[in-house]
Amino acid sequence: MDVWESGERQISWAARSMPVLTAIGERFGLERPLDGLKIAACLHVTAETAVLMGALKAGGAEIALAASNPLSTRDDVAEALRAYGIAVHARAGVDRPTYYRHIHQALDLGPDLVLDDGCDLVNILHTERTDLLAGVGGGCEETTTGIIRLRQMTAEHALKFPVVAVNDTRTKRMFDNRYGTGQSTLDGIMRATNVMLAGRTVVVAGFGFCGRGVAERAKGFGARVIVTEIDAVKALDATLQGYEVRPMAQAALLGDLFITVTGNRDVIRAEHLAAMKDGAILANAGHFDVEIDVRALDELAVEVIRGVRPNTDEYVMPDGRRLLLLAEGRLVNLTAAEGHPAAVMDMSFSAQALAVAWLAGERARLEPGVYDVPPEIDHEVARLKLAATGIGIDELTAEQEDYLHSWRVGS
Amino acid sequence: MDVWESGERQISWAARSMPVLTAIGERFGLERPLDGLKIAACLHVTAETAVLMGALKAGGAEIALAASNPLSTRDDVAEALRAYGIAVHARAGVDRPTYYRHIHQALDLGPDLVLDDGCDLVNILHTERTDLLAGVGGGCEETTTGIIRLRQMTAEHALKFPVVAVNDTRTKRMFDNRYGTGQSTLDGIMRATNVMLAGRTVVVAGFGFCGRGVAERAKGFGARVIVTEIDAVKALDATLQGYEVRPMAQAALLGDLFITVTGNRDVIRAEHLAAMKDGAILANAGHFDVEIDVRALDELAVEVIRGVRPNTDEYVMPDGRRLLLLAEGRLVNLTAAEGHPAAVMDMSFSAQALAVAWLAGERARLEPGVYDVPPEIDHEVARLKLAATGIGIDELTAEQEDYLHSWRVGS
Amino acid sequence: MDVWESGERQISWAARSMPVLTAIGERFGLERPLDGLKIAACLHVTAETAVLMGALKAGGAEIALAASNPLSTRDDVAEALRAYGIAVHARAGVDRPTYYRHIHQALDLGPDLVLDDGCDLVNILHTERTDLLAGVGGGCEETTTGIIRLRQMTAEHALKFPVVAVNDTRTKRMFDNRYGTGQSTLDGIMRATNVMLAGRTVVVAGFGFCGRGVAERAKGFGARVIVTEIDAVKALDATLQGYEVRPMAQAALLGDLFITVTGNRDVIRAEHLAAMKDGAILANAGHFDVEIDVRALDELAVEVIRGVRPNTDEYVMPDGRRLLLLAEGRLVNLTAAEGHPAAVMDMSFSAQALAVAWLAGERARLEPGVYDVPPEIDHEVARLKLAATGIGIDELTAEQEDYLHSWRVGS
Amino acid sequence: MDVWESGERQISWAARSMPVLTAIGERFGLERPLDGLKIAACLHVTAETAVLMGALKAGGAEIALAASNPLSTRDDVAEALRAYGIAVHARAGVDRPTYYRHIHQALDLGPDLVLDDGCDLVNILHTERTDLLAGVGGGCEETTTGIIRLRQMTAEHALKFPVVAVNDTRTKRMFDNRYGTGQSTLDGIMRATNVMLAGRTVVVAGFGFCGRGVAERAKGFGARVIVTEIDAVKALDATLQGYEVRPMAQAALLGDLFITVTGNRDVIRAEHLAAMKDGAILANAGHFDVEIDVRALDELAVEVIRGVRPNTDEYVMPDGRRLLLLAEGRLVNLTAAEGHPAAVMDMSFSAQALAVAWLAGERARLEPGVYDVPPEIDHEVARLKLAATGIGIDELTAEQEDYLHSWRVGS
Repeated sequence: MDVWESGERQISWAARSMPVLTAIGERFGLERPLDGLKIAACLHVTAETAVLMGALKAGGAEIALAASNPLSTRDDVAEALRAYGIAVHARAGVDRPTYYRHIHQALDLGPDLVLDDGCDLVNILHTERTDLLAGVGGGCEETTTGIIRLRQMTAEHALKFPVVAVNDTRTKRMFDNRYGTGQSTLDGIMRATNVMLAGRTVVVAGFGFCGRGVAERAKGFGARVIVTEIDAVKALDATLQGYEVRPMAQAALLGDLFITVTGNRDVIRAEHLAAMKDGAILANAGHFDVEIDVRALDELAVEVIRGVRPNTDEYVMPDGRRLLLLAEGRLVNLTAAEGHPAAVMDMSFSAQALAVAWLAGERARLEPGVYDVPPEIDHEVARLKLAATGIGIDELTAEQEDYLHSWRVGS
Repeated sequence: MDVWESGERQISWAARSMPVLTAIGERFGLERPLDGLKIAACLHVTAETAVLMGALKAGGAEIALAASNPLSTRDDVAEALRAYGIAVHARAGVDRPTYYRHIHQALDLGPDLVLDDGCDLVNILHTERTDLLAGVGGGCEETTTGIIRLRQMTAEHALKFPVVAVNDTRTKRMFDNRYGTGQSTLDGIMRATNVMLAGRTVVVAGFGFCGRGVAERAKGFGARVIVTEIDAVKALDATLQGYEVRPMAQAALLGDLFITVTGNRDVIRAEHLAAMKDGAILANAGHFDVEIDVRALDELAVEVIRGVRPNTDEYVMPDGRRLLLLAEGRLVNLTAAEGHPAAVMDMSFSAQALAVAWLAGERARLEPGVYDVPPEIDHEVARLKLAATGIGIDELTAEQEDYLHSWRVGS
Repeated sequence: MDVWESGERQISWAARSMPVLTAIGERFGLERPLDGLKIAACLHVTAETAVLMGALKAGGAEIALAASNPLSTRDDVAEALRAYGIAVHARAGVDRPTYYRHIHQALDLGPDLVLDDGCDLVNILHTERTDLLAGVGGGCEETTTGIIRLRQMTAEHALKFPVVAVNDTRTKRMFDNRYGTGQSTLDGIMRATNVMLAGRTVVVAGFGFCGRGVAERAKGFGARVIVTEIDAVKALDATLQGYEVRPMAQAALLGDLFITVTGNRDVIRAEHLAAMKDGAILANAGHFDVEIDVRALDELAVEVIRGVRPNTDEYVMPDGRRLLLLAEGRLVNLTAAEGHPAAVMDMSFSAQALAVAWLAGERARLEPGVYDVPPEIDHEVARLKLAATGIGIDELTAEQEDYLHSWRVGS
Repeated sequence: MDVWESGERQISWAARSMPVLTAIGERFGLERPLDGLKIAACLHVTAETAVLMGALKAGGAEIALAASNPLSTRDDVAEALRAYGIAVHARAGVDRPTYYRHIHQALDLGPDLVLDDGCDLVNILHTERTDLLAGVGGGCEETTTGIIRLRQMTAEHALKFPVVAVNDTRTKRMFDNRYGTGQSTLDGIMRATNVMLAGRTVVVAGFGFCGRGVAERAKGFGARVIVTEIDAVKALDATLQGYEVRPMAQAALLGDLFITVTGNRDVIRAEHLAAMKDGAILANAGHFDVEIDVRALDELAVEVIRGVRPNTDEYVMPDGRRLLLLAEGRLVNLTAAEGHPAAVMDMSFSAQALAVAWLAGERARLEPGVYDVPPEIDHEVARLKLAATGIGIDELTAEQEDYLHSWRVGS
């Protein structure tokens, strides 16, 4: 199997796991919403991205792609994309100057629209390639970090075109936070420990969207779930869903497994570690590795045995208790499992494809600034996902449309 | 047992089911946030309202109460309230002129603040008692209908003081829509039919907050649940929660029990009725009795047998099938069961009590208009509810406060 | 509507809720398994029994029916049965001598087979009507109490014909204990108290089939469920299903609602009552009213307020706490709700109808004694129930039959 | 880390995951139930077995251990056991003659009791070492296959001492079939495919203990679960638990993921494979690899792509659909995940340790033959498991004992 075939195969596997994006690509092939447009993209060069590139090309776009991170570049995928007529400026493991040169090469296309993942391409456009700015009608940005930079640029009137923040839509949030994180967190814990969850007490710290998903899955495995929260409304909701709610100081005494997913630091601290049962397992599913105070754990321990199981370190306490830390306190679903299933990328890349088509039509009417994904795109993604699953829903009759309208104005 | 004692007993029973409002009353007794203020209220004169009146009086207010609906007035409760020093202008079953005279009598107090349920009192203030307007610092309105009228008044610059819309807070919505409606709908269906739900196919039309609650409870009884929707995002969410989603045309063939909770009309129509199984049960949990097309059912039927069970009518179709309509298509949880448990009123009246105290402090700074309940009041209600249930939650450490703050600004 | 019509209507309503028995009646009409046989029955004269009688008559039997309890006799149903050609010797509210005369009148038929509910008819046969014994080929007994008497008779070699114990089959146990009791217990508690279950702590004492059903339904309503047990294996199973397990001494401190379903006495005792929270609700779903020590409750209370809600008595403790006892500690599902749905009777009467047909065929080959319902009858009831619900299952292929057979002998 | 230390560490890790067996070992140390007894064992020489050996030695036994399978022997564990004073006759990967020589060496001890796993040691005792038979008071056998051989020996009056069948107790079945297989099957599927389960349709073929466990876990992940069965009673139970039940011919059209767990062959056949959706996933959790007709799949496929993911092969159908077969149709939980968690071994080895102590006391009174584990041992294991988890249960009062007794005799 040569390089091109290997890349081809990966793309085709990804495509089969991304039915919505595939359907959009097919429709784009008929409707050609991007005919004659040039797109410069700076994204992870992976099989999933390749499916997105394919959809945009089917829509009529000419594309140049650079890598948003040289570590994630799949050279075989890049090769297959080139064979498909997309200019890929990327190679695995290149150094920093080469990384930036690649972005410049992608920009050399003279893009009408741009796709970014971390804001590097947009940044270069606004600093080193201002000559191209006039031609750019709009862009998409994939990451929260990138959005924050773009909002600062907007506040300083520096941003010169409209950008759609494609990282957050209702459909993506469902797939990503609640159901994606829920499943992959438990998956990571099982791979790391092979512990039986039925009958165990699982403490879930945080009852946001992710925490809710984690709690549901732990309950679904037959665990007794205890929730900790700092927000009274979320805590009340947890009780109404049948969960026990306790402060961490109490939960620390009861848990067999602790999963932090709060977005805050030091949720599990020395005082909690001191109270835990022998054999307690500590896992983090929050974005940063600050939720479990690993430094405190290190200081308390008289011995640390690394790798008692894959991604599992054992900390021996002075009183002989042993605490098990998974994935060094980093995201357990990414480290010990495989992160989000392809279904999640299908949601977010589909929103991105539709946002690009929307920008193509609307760019002349849009002021510079950061835009949410229009709700109709979110609905369209949901609609296509249902269709891909073979699920039909109802449509409003004319009388129902009238009724809703009249009711909403209060008659 | 005399009238006063009967009223007293009902109030005391209600108070025990309203621990949050009771706790607020106790705190008001210490803090006296309403000292010297006059409050005119137009509310249902029931035991639950009496607990609210008690809390406000404990807070220092002088109160005059009229009935917002003469049909719901409990004379024994009114008597007990009078003995407690509250001026009650209400009697069960009075005629329309007396109803309005009672409101005028309540207004004669010369209120600083007003509580309304349907906007009648506020309306009279702005039309017939404009002399009192200058003294009124603010008000609360309980109903959606009233809020719509107040928003129209605001749009026309007619509203002369700030009004808090106390009908909708996150805590009330949880207790009311999702968990309250969920439970009471199933309760009503069991009382009406005594049907065993395990193993039956239940079709839930609508997957908003109420529909979600109904679906959860039906699943909790061992039913196979099918959801119908018109909104693709909600439909997708339903599938991710493990529900089957189908158009009503398909679901009609499969359901043993249909529950409409959409907020729209004619969700179950002639075409669906024609397709249903013999013995199918039809119930509505949406606000208005328009969701099931009862007229179509009447027209299709060759015979209607009223009252085969309490709140259950049997419609015989030309082909011999029999469909069972509960509560004539009106709200099954109110008609066949008892509507919301007292815990729901505890949430909304507690928000109302705290909103009154907030208005007392803020009224000088507030423009006329309709205000949402401030989020801190919602949190306070949740906090008190947890405390009443003996549930503790965590508090942020100083480091955590810092971290959240710094993170939110994007560092 | 005359008496006959009223009875007719009730029977037809019951028949529609008993699809399995109705299907058996239809098949009996074709196959005539009881042609020429005389059946004397002593059963509750209700609409459900009428459907059973109809099935047996359709099968070719000549029937005489007496009441097993004069209090449950529905005179209008009796009248409708007579019009259908069944000799009914029963009238509501008759005295004891008349009750026994009715049984004798039914026996005057000279039965080939007998149906009994409590063993009175069989007892009279073996004591006062021994002349008829030679003609009796077999019988069915409906109750546990009756079965105990029959086993004693067998032990003493007194029983003269085979009797099928139709009170206990796998399908009936499912419908009755687990799903029937589960649902009706929660139903009874809601009717009695209208309490919101989401977020409440429900203590279920006993994790047998009934307790399991009750726990599942309480969990299905969003309650936090705590199980108490005396059997370690059942307790372990409860933990593996995600329930908290605690001794009652601990659970007493935590519960908002207590449901006993153990089959034992004094499961909730003075020491537990003394520890409970203000407002705790006590309900029993076990067969006898001995599970909650009501005498202890009476002795502890300084005041008892009967009927604060239907089927709800309030006991005021010396320290001011108030405990609520439902249905005086008797079966809450029968007292405050309506007991088992018709679907349960459908299961047990269907087994009875098939057992009668089985006896008709096998009686010559059977020794006197008590027989379980043959497993093939249980499977047939389940099969018909699935068919009535429109559910198909797989059948073994010839290869699969061979494989199972060969595997079971250990090759 | 030398060999001994490596073995020591594994044993100590296993011991921490086996709290019940550890507690039994501690108790044995005090009570010395095996004082002076010689035990010959033929078991897998693994860390878990080492914990069992430790418990028996603590109880006073002198032990000789041979391997029941040379492939599973851990030499480092063997070394650590020798250091602990147990005679281990085993080495990884030895040839067949050596394997048998090891068993003979273990028997040279002249055992009072024997432990066997597959009946080889017992077989040699009854054929080649009959001189030792007189001294053997009893044994334990771990496997179903071994039990079948022992029952045949009993039928032929060949077995000379009592043997306890320790492979099946209620507690082991809970941990093993329902909760163990349930979790590990889903675990294996996630590791193999990383597919998101929420919103997918999962078809579970077979609703025995294992199927029930698999269905519960799939539901717990947010899947829509369809059950297929050949047994009407089990099928009915599945519907009452809220599952859809369908014949495989229908389910084949609907499923995204199929899991067979029936104990039968060809549950998924050519006709079903022909009907499945593109991308359908096939996994087996039944003991033998005959449940999915892999030969039919091979014959239908125009192309087979091995290893598209770990343990995942893709079969391309003539119409272009692609079916994914996991683990070549073998047990997915063992092949793609890690089989049972240590908690399962804790249950079965604890029953074995207690059975040995029971045999030590009872052997003089027992006839040759196969014995079930006495129920009190099962209860004791459950009791110890609850204690290890810190869970207390109730004990009967004297009055309750009396009541139960009197009730059971029917008064």
